[in-house]
Amino acid sequence: MPKVTCEISMSLDGFIAGPNDKPGNGLGDGGERLHEWVTALESWRERHNLSGGEAGRDSELLEESFKNAGAVLVGRRMFDNAEEWGDDPPFRVPVFVVTHRPREKLVKEGATTFTFVDGVEQALDQARAAAGAKDVSVGGGATVIQQLMKAGLLDELQIHLAPVFLGGGRPLFEDMGQMELECTRVIESPAVTHLRYRPRR
Amino acid sequence: MPKVTCEISMSLDGFIAGPNDKPGNGLGDGGERLHEWVTALESWRERHNLSGGEAGRDSELLEESFKNAGAVLVGRRMFDNAEEWGDDPPFRVPVFVVTHRPREKLVKEGATTFTFVDGVEQALDQARAAAGAKDVSVGGGATVIQQLMKAGLLDELQIHLAPVFLGGGRPLFEDMGQMELECTRVIESPAVTHLRYRPRR
Repeated sequence: MPKVTCEISMSLDGFIAGPNDKPGNGLGDGGERLHEWVTALESWRERHNLSGGEAGRDSELLEESFKNAGAVLVGRRMFDNAEEWGDDPPFRVPVFVVTHRPREKLVKEGATTFTFVDGVEQALDQARAAAGAKDVSVGGGATVIQQLMKAGLLDELQIHLAPVFLGGGRPLFEDMGQMELECTRVIESPAVTHLRYRPRR
Repeated sequence: MPKVTCEISMSLDGFIAGPNDKPGNGLGDGGERLHEWVTALESWRERHNLSGGEAGRDSELLEESFKNAGAVLVGRRMFDNAEEWGDDPPFRVPVFVVTHRPREKLVKEGATTFTFVDGVEQALDQARAAAGAKDVSVGGGATVIQQLMKAGLLDELQIHLAPVFLGGGRPLFEDMGQMELECTRVIESPAVTHLRYRPRR
């Protein structure tokens, strides 16, 4: 049964981007520190057409997520960052962008397409259809993740918890209300702790 | 070498007490959910003069912390809660309370004393002296923990991460600035994930 999944790097003080995030500083001040663990991995580098990198458990973990994803759902802000990634973005599956300003579908190299949809639930429906028997992977940002969680539409959330304070920026969780989750997997790695949760319905 | 340590239960959205915490509702709305894992433990119940409870890894973990602590440092709000615990509080060591309103030392049963000190660093000095070769355990709340971390005075922070959202309340980390920590131990348990960190100097 295909799932709606999300995995995202978060600082110990709860931020997924540092202060002052904006185009040109998409991760915010210090935010690159959240992603150091992943940009060093072989499987990440392969997706970004780079050679080398570290093999091992973290790399396999990421490769597993890439393989399970039949479609990706992102917010508009994340797409603005993705555009910087050029003509061969690392998704290699259909990407659905939640936006109030729909535009024509973009077709990139390597099987990545961007389809613009008004409304997070509408975008999810299209992503599910495109993913078929595979999972829909939610790429972020925080707003889209929060909307899906509050609507009970996220099946699995994996947090890569980085041992760092960013001191401010974009929090992953805001006004979530009270909710129970189940921790379904913990993987310790030198750079981050991988914590997988299933929201309880 | 004795350490200054802190361990505290935190929700996945970063709160150590739920909304509306005040005397009579010290954990805030829903905040008891953070502590369910600990109040069920044999070692916690023994400290509170209750029989029974669960043995096992979590209970040993807590017992280890009790044994290592030669003195405890708490904020004034936490002391207000502690007073509800009656004549035989669970500390069983000297407790130093940071407060701008010093008062006479309180002597309770079971080796617990409360000494009131103006200023967190002054209180820490007295706690270190009282602890001798043992650790100083910081009981909270968030303000005291933040002050010690920002001053570089906390050697070890253990977060018991509960798989729950509280939706609001008292955040453990606020305006921490940018700081690196090292994750020194991860223990998975059914109810919480125990994450131990060492701030990097």
